Amino acid sequence: LFPVNGRRKKIFPLVYEKKKKVGIGLVGAGSIGRVHARNLAYYIPRARLVGIADTYVDAANKLAAELEVDKVSQDYNELLENPEVDALLLAVPPFLKPEMISNAARKGKHIFVEKPLALSLKEADQIIAAADKGGIKVQVGYQRRFDNSLREAENAIKAGKLGRILFVSSRTRDPPAKPLGWSTDPKLSGGIMLDTCSHDFDVIRWLSGKEVERVYADGVTLVYEELKQGGIPDNVLVTLNLQGGALAHVDSCGYTVYGYDSSAEVLGTEGAVFVGIGERNSALVMNSDGYRGQFPQSYPERFGQAYHDELEDFVDCILHDRQVRVTAADGRAAVEIGLAATESMKRHEPINLPFRG
Amino acid sequence: LFPVNGRRKKIFPLVYEKKKKVGIGLVGAGSIGRVHARNLAYYIPRARLVGIADTYVDAANKLAAELEVDKVSQDYNELLENPEVDALLLAVPPFLKPEMISNAARKGKHIFVEKPLALSLKEADQIIAAADKGGIKVQVGYQRRFDNSLREAENAIKAGKLGRILFVSSRTRDPPAKPLGWSTDPKLSGGIMLDTCSHDFDVIRWLSGKEVERVYADGVTLVYEELKQGGIPDNVLVTLNLQGGALAHVDSCGYTVYGYDSSAEVLGTEGAVFVGIGERNSALVMNSDGYRGQFPQSYPERFGQAYHDELEDFVDCILHDRQVRVTAADGRAAVEIGLAATESMKRHEPINLPFRG
Amino acid sequence: LFPVNGRRKKIFPLVYEKKKKVGIGLVGAGSIGRVHARNLAYYIPRARLVGIADTYVDAANKLAAELEVDKVSQDYNELLENPEVDALLLAVPPFLKPEMISNAARKGKHIFVEKPLALSLKEADQIIAAADKGGIKVQVGYQRRFDNSLREAENAIKAGKLGRILFVSSRTRDPPAKPLGWSTDPKLSGGIMLDTCSHDFDVIRWLSGKEVERVYADGVTLVYEELKQGGIPDNVLVTLNLQGGALAHVDSCGYTVYGYDSSAEVLGTEGAVFVGIGERNSALVMNSDGYRGQFPQSYPERFGQAYHDELEDFVDCILHDRQVRVTAADGRAAVEIGLAATESMKRHEPINLPFRG
Amino acid sequence: LFPVNGRRKKIFPLVYEKKKKVGIGLVGAGSIGRVHARNLAYYIPRARLVGIADTYVDAANKLAAELEVDKVSQDYNELLENPEVDALLLAVPPFLKPEMISNAARKGKHIFVEKPLALSLKEADQIIAAADKGGIKVQVGYQRRFDNSLREAENAIKAGKLGRILFVSSRTRDPPAKPLGWSTDPKLSGGIMLDTCSHDFDVIRWLSGKEVERVYADGVTLVYEELKQGGIPDNVLVTLNLQGGALAHVDSCGYTVYGYDSSAEVLGTEGAVFVGIGERNSALVMNSDGYRGQFPQSYPERFGQAYHDELEDFVDCILHDRQVRVTAADGRAAVEIGLAATESMKRHEPINLPFRG
Repeated sequence: LFPVNGRRKKIFPLVYEKKKKVGIGLVGAGSIGRVHARNLAYYIPRARLVGIADTYVDAANKLAAELEVDKVSQDYNELLENPEVDALLLAVPPFLKPEMISNAARKGKHIFVEKPLALSLKEADQIIAAADKGGIKVQVGYQRRFDNSLREAENAIKAGKLGRILFVSSRTRDPPAKPLGWSTDPKLSGGIMLDTCSHDFDVIRWLSGKEVERVYADGVTLVYEELKQGGIPDNVLVTLNLQGGALAHVDSCGYTVYGYDSSAEVLGTEGAVFVGIGERNSALVMNSDGYRGQFPQSYPERFGQAYHDELEDFVDCILHDRQVRVTAADGRAAVEIGLAATESMKRHEPINLPFRG
Repeated sequence: LFPVNGRRKKIFPLVYEKKKKVGIGLVGAGSIGRVHARNLAYYIPRARLVGIADTYVDAANKLAAELEVDKVSQDYNELLENPEVDALLLAVPPFLKPEMISNAARKGKHIFVEKPLALSLKEADQIIAAADKGGIKVQVGYQRRFDNSLREAENAIKAGKLGRILFVSSRTRDPPAKPLGWSTDPKLSGGIMLDTCSHDFDVIRWLSGKEVERVYADGVTLVYEELKQGGIPDNVLVTLNLQGGALAHVDSCGYTVYGYDSSAEVLGTEGAVFVGIGERNSALVMNSDGYRGQFPQSYPERFGQAYHDELEDFVDCILHDRQVRVTAADGRAAVEIGLAATESMKRHEPINLPFRG
Repeated sequence: LFPVNGRRKKIFPLVYEKKKKVGIGLVGAGSIGRVHARNLAYYIPRARLVGIADTYVDAANKLAAELEVDKVSQDYNELLENPEVDALLLAVPPFLKPEMISNAARKGKHIFVEKPLALSLKEADQIIAAADKGGIKVQVGYQRRFDNSLREAENAIKAGKLGRILFVSSRTRDPPAKPLGWSTDPKLSGGIMLDTCSHDFDVIRWLSGKEVERVYADGVTLVYEELKQGGIPDNVLVTLNLQGGALAHVDSCGYTVYGYDSSAEVLGTEGAVFVGIGERNSALVMNSDGYRGQFPQSYPERFGQAYHDELEDFVDCILHDRQVRVTAADGRAAVEIGLAATESMKRHEPINLPFRG
Repeated sequence: LFPVNGRRKKIFPLVYEKKKKVGIGLVGAGSIGRVHARNLAYYIPRARLVGIADTYVDAANKLAAELEVDKVSQDYNELLENPEVDALLLAVPPFLKPEMISNAARKGKHIFVEKPLALSLKEADQIIAAADKGGIKVQVGYQRRFDNSLREAENAIKAGKLGRILFVSSRTRDPPAKPLGWSTDPKLSGGIMLDTCSHDFDVIRWLSGKEVERVYADGVTLVYEELKQGGIPDNVLVTLNLQGGALAHVDSCGYTVYGYDSSAEVLGTEGAVFVGIGERNSALVMNSDGYRGQFPQSYPERFGQAYHDELEDFVDCILHDRQVRVTAADGRAAVEIGLAATESMKRHEPINLPFRG
């Protein structure tokens, strides 16, 4: 029922029963929170955005006004108390998540949580235990699993077109940031390995169907003066050893002048698949300097379809009591690899998994 | 507020006033009617799909059930009587349009009408006169004007990047049809020149900013046995002379095995722009036979974003009393070229415009 | 034995017998003459460039010095008298060709002649008769038949991958010319339909395997002031009806700012093939304006491999007494279509073939 | 004077003086030796292939017959004694190179030597010392430095279009090999890091203009049973730290079903450049499965132009007493990185450079 947007076919057709809607409370009215809120308010028919909470209440109010949402609060607990809320969508810094998810689990509210799941394995385990106890669904916001192009890759792999997997790579390149946000502060975000590369770790686990056994990472600070002092890298490169022997590779750059560039490839004994180079549109302008096309300039531009579909599928999982596609265990695995990669950067040596941060 | 779908940025940002919605009645629950209905019901926040009319009432009922629309009728006049209906969306065969639009105009209901506007210039003129008298807006459904890639082309042209225009081409290739629908019957649809190529004629007028002065067309029936008997072409080729001297070209094939292929190019003294080859997604599968990508397989897949945006813009035009982007006069111009092209095919000679069918 | 140049595999592997070389005399030391001369002197092992003739003897001398060729003459008859000369390569204006070929035929010298074969059907027939009588081989320089990419298209068609052919197009876009050369003078070159578009006519006949039955052409002068006075078009568009019913299309522009652009496509009931957009190389430069690639800037850049291979194959045809791949009859057919297209532009009506200029 | 082959412009125009030719003796008539021999014999006008030596004299004889070369020998010393030989082209296993180059240096014969330069740093230093003493030129066969697409990348970098370099990657993927050749035996070839990846190490040093300071490598054997026993990897992944801080990445796979795939990219603060995906030609075949293009299937197909140009430039360096573009010092640097990478694979830890094998 989703409009076939911009040349792409809907991969998950959904059938809605009449009238039943899932009530959702948004916690966090920052940039990714607003992306999710607009999808919920306008483009996911079976969801209803019941309320918005943010400690910075002005942001919540502004978003609520735009989307005609009545309930606004500084305290997410008000959403937990609201019987119309079936699930919370957590678009908050990671350090807040363990407590929020524990409280939600006690109230039986489902959780859609932005990545990363947590900043430590201890917290991740705590979340998983609380969710299990509360019997709630927890979906982690690795939206690439819902990207139609990556789904085609998954389909080719599952259909056996690639044979046995030999090599996987995934990369994330962010455009220049000005100013730098809180996500570059490792204490708040977990650093580039948890905040950014955990997307790539998740793609590698997902497409290969294999767990990571060893990781070697290197990071350097080449652009942002603010980061140099804190020893925070803006360019990283990671080597992963997968179960069964295949190698995998991640690279990430935080200052990509040509736009937002996310690509992935899987090489197997029978075939390979490459996803990228994501073009902004198909208009090529040609003159005496050559031809010119354009990359997407931001992650919502590249992954807008995926951001929509992950939420729509989460809503469908609640309505039909299905297993979510990106579980808390998946979220934990990405955190574990990210922590191991961070440690490897410090020690300048490979780190074996399982790793206990 | 539209979700950034599939890597593409919204070109028309809309600001909605609180609460005000435009009530729309759909006439025609066929394939394109359903595309529009779903956009209205789910993805255009300021529109409300008030009712659905179709002489084949089962189709209307089925669609209404899916979209939770209360009013269903066999007679579109019931929609005209409904005070909640601000506008009609006509997804009906062309011969029905003159009367429907005249009646709507008398009731002050705005009109969004699928292409072509009419089957004759007389009918087109009648529609224009009625709309003028009724003071209503009429938008014709040439959705390509809202396609983000073609809009980039328009922007490049308007920004002067192409200089003076030398050559324009537009083509439409439809996948094999089985069975053939009513649109291949010239009496109902106006034939391939009005039904299909009028999209291309509109793109050429739009991007070049020039009117057509002469047209030469040729058509052959190479595939469909059903069409051979009626002398109805399934492959056509058109040469157009534009005001100021530039040449333009249209070709269309009704049996394109690799999918739905619509492309356009404009060549100027300073630069050129090419829109196409629309890929279905960015996943390339590679094996020992080479690499393989995919074309879109249908027009809604290629133009889903445009189908959404044309309706959203129509709604916005009503809310803000703006001029629509594809007027009845544009619809008439495309009909005129289409009729001249049809005549040229018959006579095997070029036809000058203005042409009075 | 040809070096595998720039990613492309040699399609015609040749086996040379020891020592035997074909002696060739070049007539015409202009731009295309020099391309052929360098191929003969350096890159076609079984050919020997014996001598060069040009009425403008300075050009011949300069080229001969560069290539270390001993025999230079103002009169091509000296080459005809030379027993070391097995074949003449005629890179001269068309009006000179009938006499030259007749004389060569009398001496039993084979002919490689640049396109077009002649300026009239009478001359073309005279050439064919003379060649038949003299028992010599005549190959016309439609080098696209030797382009590896177009050969792949031919292979796909011959292997039946396209099914029955529905539509063919071929286009040639030349970069801006300054100053205009003799080839824009219709009296010397035959005009754009013989000089440029005859390449496209030949590609259409070759790939479709069908003769042309009717042609409609239109031409306009939009850029070059020098041409406006003479009514000589710099932009043309041609519709062709092929035997068996398929339509074909040619367009050509003489002022293409982004470079030299030659492409072709064939659409069939089972598949389609597209050849173009020829990139200059595979380096993409990306910055905040998008990514940028480059078109070839000239016909030798685009077709260098083909120019080499057509001559090498001609030499091989002589050595092994094989039929050439582009015969005088092919050359005549392209002239006939070109003349009909020129007439159609004048009369503004379609012209049926056979056409007697 | 090189024919403009297949869409690409000659980047090094050469002017030859009359008559002077460089005499070259080929040592090694294996696969790469034959590529060079044919270029020398047919396509490099100022070179003359004087003789061919191979201990397996049948191969030398066969090649000599094909190319009409008179001198054939089992002992390369005969070429050294021949006064017509100005330079040796060594297409032999690396272990033979130190002695051969030392002997050639004593005789004042220049050297074109296939990569890698040597199997140890000791041997590399010995070669450099001998060449210095003999005053001879030594060029190492890293042909990618002559690839037109990579040259475009170099030009963009040197023109400052990329700003400061942040990240470099280079990769080499070979098609499946059957049977495996001597190059997979580390004792003969130095192993994948010297035999294959040294190409990538050279590209990284060349394009970045930076030396390598640290290397971490991992390798696995996933496909070839023959290699598993010897612990010889068929898939490797390398992280490099460059002077000044930038990271670099190499990956290589010895079993790439879709063909031969070599690509490189450089990411800088102002722009980026990507070289790849090398297509075999521009013909796209489209049917109901999608569109299909083709990769090159072998390294000579991808790098044919570069193999020609590196030899032509070597000949030109001798004729004009210019510095070669890939020196013995470059060859040594690639060996050093390769040895460090091999050691890193063994030890599972990063290795700092300078490294003394």
